[in-house]
Parts: sequence; structure tokens; C-alpha cells
Amino acid sequence: MSSEKEILKIDPAVKSEELVRAIRKTFDEKGFSKAVVGLSGGLDSSVVTFLLVKALGKENVFGFIMPYGGQDTADAEEVAALLGIKAERIDILPMVDAYFSQVPDADKVRRGNKMARERMSILYDQSHKAGALVAGTGNKTEIRLGYFTLHGDGACAVALLASLYKTQVIQLARYLGLPDRIITKKPSADLWEGQFDEDEIGASYGELDAILYLLDKGIPEEEIIGMGHERSVVDIVIKRIAKNRFKLEGPAFL
Amino acid sequence: MSSEKEILKIDPAVKSEELVRAIRKTFDEKGFSKAVVGLSGGLDSSVVTFLLVKALGKENVFGFIMPYGGQDTADAEEVAALLGIKAERIDILPMVDAYFSQVPDADKVRRGNKMARERMSILYDQSHKAGALVAGTGNKTEIRLGYFTLHGDGACAVALLASLYKTQVIQLARYLGLPDRIITKKPSADLWEGQFDEDEIGASYGELDAILYLLDKGIPEEEIIGMGHERSVVDIVIKRIAKNRFKLEGPAFL
Repeated sequence: MSSEKEILKIDPAVKSEELVRAIRKTFDEKGFSKAVVGLSGGLDSSVVTFLLVKALGKENVFGFIMPYGGQDTADAEEVAALLGIKAERIDILPMVDAYFSQVPDADKVRRGNKMARERMSILYDQSHKAGALVAGTGNKTEIRLGYFTLHGDGACAVALLASLYKTQVIQLARYLGLPDRIITKKPSADLWEGQFDEDEIGASYGELDAILYLLDKGIPEEEIIGMGHERSVVDIVIKRIAKNRFKLEGPAFL
Repeated sequence: MSSEKEILKIDPAVKSEELVRAIRKTFDEKGFSKAVVGLSGGLDSSVVTFLLVKALGKENVFGFIMPYGGQDTADAEEVAALLGIKAERIDILPMVDAYFSQVPDADKVRRGNKMARERMSILYDQSHKAGALVAGTGNKTEIRLGYFTLHGDGACAVALLASLYKTQVIQLARYLGLPDRIITKKPSADLWEGQFDEDEIGASYGELDAILYLLDKGIPEEEIIGMGHERSVVDIVIKRIAKNRFKLEGPAFL
């Protein structure tokens, strides 16, 4: 698999400059100079915040730390402090629990989706207040797999990491100088205790990214398997893409 | 203007049949047989619910009545009773107030958007529970003007009324036998006390629909004004379309 690792390699300095220019251009075109971003303390939202500060200046980036009750927010706070941006803390527990006290039968997936949508709702409200755009933190791996909550963390005005597979976001994170703990911790959507992306999906991001890269190049399934990728993992990728296509397609207009 | 009124006339029997077929086809293609719909007691959601029952059967349509506290829900309940569908009542006040008690400075627009997004979040949660699709109630006038809350009432799997201007929805409503009070009451998004669509937009639906119809036919602005439409109202329409285009476009993917 080492050749795919090579293929997924980016020049992070070049990519960072490209993204900073693209952020400025997109915000200009939309008539905005400020951004709001949800700070989870995870890799993606941290990279997005670093890029936003580079592109727009720290006074124009407003972070929102939105734990569910006692969730650990130390990493999110560290990112805000490192960059010197304003970060407001809003606890989503009262809103989420107010719903599930009326609808007590929900499983962890429903609870997780409700949390993601509550955070979206807060970010859009705060973007209205600040005259800012909502910055999206989904990476290309998540977007292609549909690994996000529709009208939740998938909702944004500008998707900053849409051109980068997860393993490429890591390369960019190292270049940007993110804290090592944020770069190396196990990726999680934090929607329930013990949720980890790679366990939930059933494959490592290294494998997923390599397979997605080949699919995105138009290489047929059987050929990808012939290159040494496990059939079961290729199946996972193809099934997730098909199952979640609706999240990217938008509504059917009758 | 009577010629435009003629132009906006539909054959409601034909349109109803077309929509019922389109609903069945779309649900089939997506692999679903059930729908959830938010029942506000207003015209659009009532028409949508009548159509859904025709297309899918009353046992496959789940209504959700989501007042903010003491909001009047008599008309929504009447629609559910008339059609014999299950309707669950979920009060959004506890969730909305739990947020604004943390963020007390919000104006009525922000409060209204939060309410619309809370209802979306509930409908998506309930659609997950029921194995159903979220039915959208926006009409063509609202969609073209962007007169909806992004990731709020604008969010759905299937937009049933996307081909009908508001005044055409009224024609369909009469044909379907909706209660007269629902057909004749002043259209409102009910996001704050005394909110009425036509006052907020600054023109009647009759005028808006006629102008949108002509614009959608590709007729230039000056020609529309030459046909007797007030410049100020044509301006309102054109400005709203431009200002709200982003709601229909989705995120910018960098």
C-alpha cells in the first residue's frame, strides 16, 4: 500500500496558501469578512480555525465551544487560546435533554444526530448575530462517505476541507503547527461515549482514503481489489457512498 | 392583471393526480413508504398532508404538531382528524427557551429561525424513528424568493409543492376539500406574534406570483413593469431572489 500513501501526500505549504486564497476569495464574493466555527477540539475543526485565522485575521473568527454537559473541552479551549480568538461556550445539554425528556425512547444514533443539529442551529444563529458565515469542517473522506449528520455538522456556507482526505488534513495540521495531542488523538464525532470514526465505519482512514482516492480517479472496484485492497473494505466504501448519496443531493423537487 | 390570474390557473384535478403519482414514484425510488410532516395548521402543510394521504395511505403519514408553548393548534388538529392520521404533539418551547436563556439578546428573527430549525431537527429525528421521509411544505413562491429558514422549514427529503406558486396551492386546496378557514386565513410562518407573509415581504401573493411567473418565463424586468406591475414590487422580488440565492445553492466546496 505504500504507493497509495505516496499518492495521498500533499505539499502542505502550497495547499495552505491555496486554501487561504480560496477562503478570502469566497468570503469576498459572498460579501462577508467574518466566520463562525464550532470548536470541538478535534483535528478538522482545529485545522479549519487555523486556516480561518490565517485568511481573515483572528479578530474575524468566532469560535463556539458546544459541549454536551460535562464533555471535555480542554483541546478546543487550547486552540482558541493558541490563536487568540474569541471563543464562546454554549452547553447543548439543556436543549437536547429538553427534547429527549419529551421523547424518551431514542437510541444513541438519534441522540447524536440531535446534538449535531443543535450545534448547527446555534452556529447559524450566531452567524446571523455576528454577520458571519458558518465555516464547515467536514473533510473529503467524510463528505464522500456521507459520514455526517444531514442539516447537522454537514451544514455550512463554506466547506473548507472539502478537497482534502482525512490523512491529508493530518499532513496540513502538522504544517500549521497544531498541538500534537489534537493531531494524534483517535478521530471521533463525539456524539456518544466511546464513538470512534474508524471503529464505526469499520476501516482505518488510511485504507478509506486510499480506496476513495482510487474510486475518485475512476478506477473500477475489481481493479482496486486487485491492487491489494481488501474486498470487505472496498465494499464498505461503496455501500456508504450509495447509502448516503441523498445527503449530498438535496431534496427531490416534485 | 386579470390575464395573469388566468395564466396562474391550474386544473387542480389533473395537478392532484400528477402529484400523487410523483409522490409514489419518488418514495418508491428512495425505498420508503412512509412520511413525516410538520402540521402547522397553515395552507401548505395541510395540502401536503392531504396529498400524502392520497398517495401513501393514512396509516403511512405521521403528523407532528410542534407549537411554541401556547400557540393555537386547533387547525392542525382538525387536519389530522379529518384525514384520520396519527398526530403527535411536541412542544418546542422547552428547547428554544433553554437556548435563549443562555443567549438572551436575540431579536425576533433569530428566535423565529431557531424555532424553524428546532422543528426541522424534530422531524428528522422522528423520520429516523419511523423509517420515513421528511415531507417538505415549501411552495414555489417561497422557494423562488428564498422565503424560508435554511436548515429549517426549507429542509426536507421531498418538496411536494415546489411546482406550485402560492395562489396555485390555494386552488389545489379548494379541490382537495380543505377546511375553508385554513384556505382563507392570512398566510403566516408563525415565527412571531403578528407575523404575516405578505406584510413582511411587502406585496400580496397574487402580485408576487404573477411577477415570479413572468420572470420564470424569462420576461425581462422592464417588460414586466410595462405590463402594469409596480416597479417597487418587481424590485422586491428581484432583490429577494438575489439575496437568498445562497439558500438554494448549498455550500461552497473549497
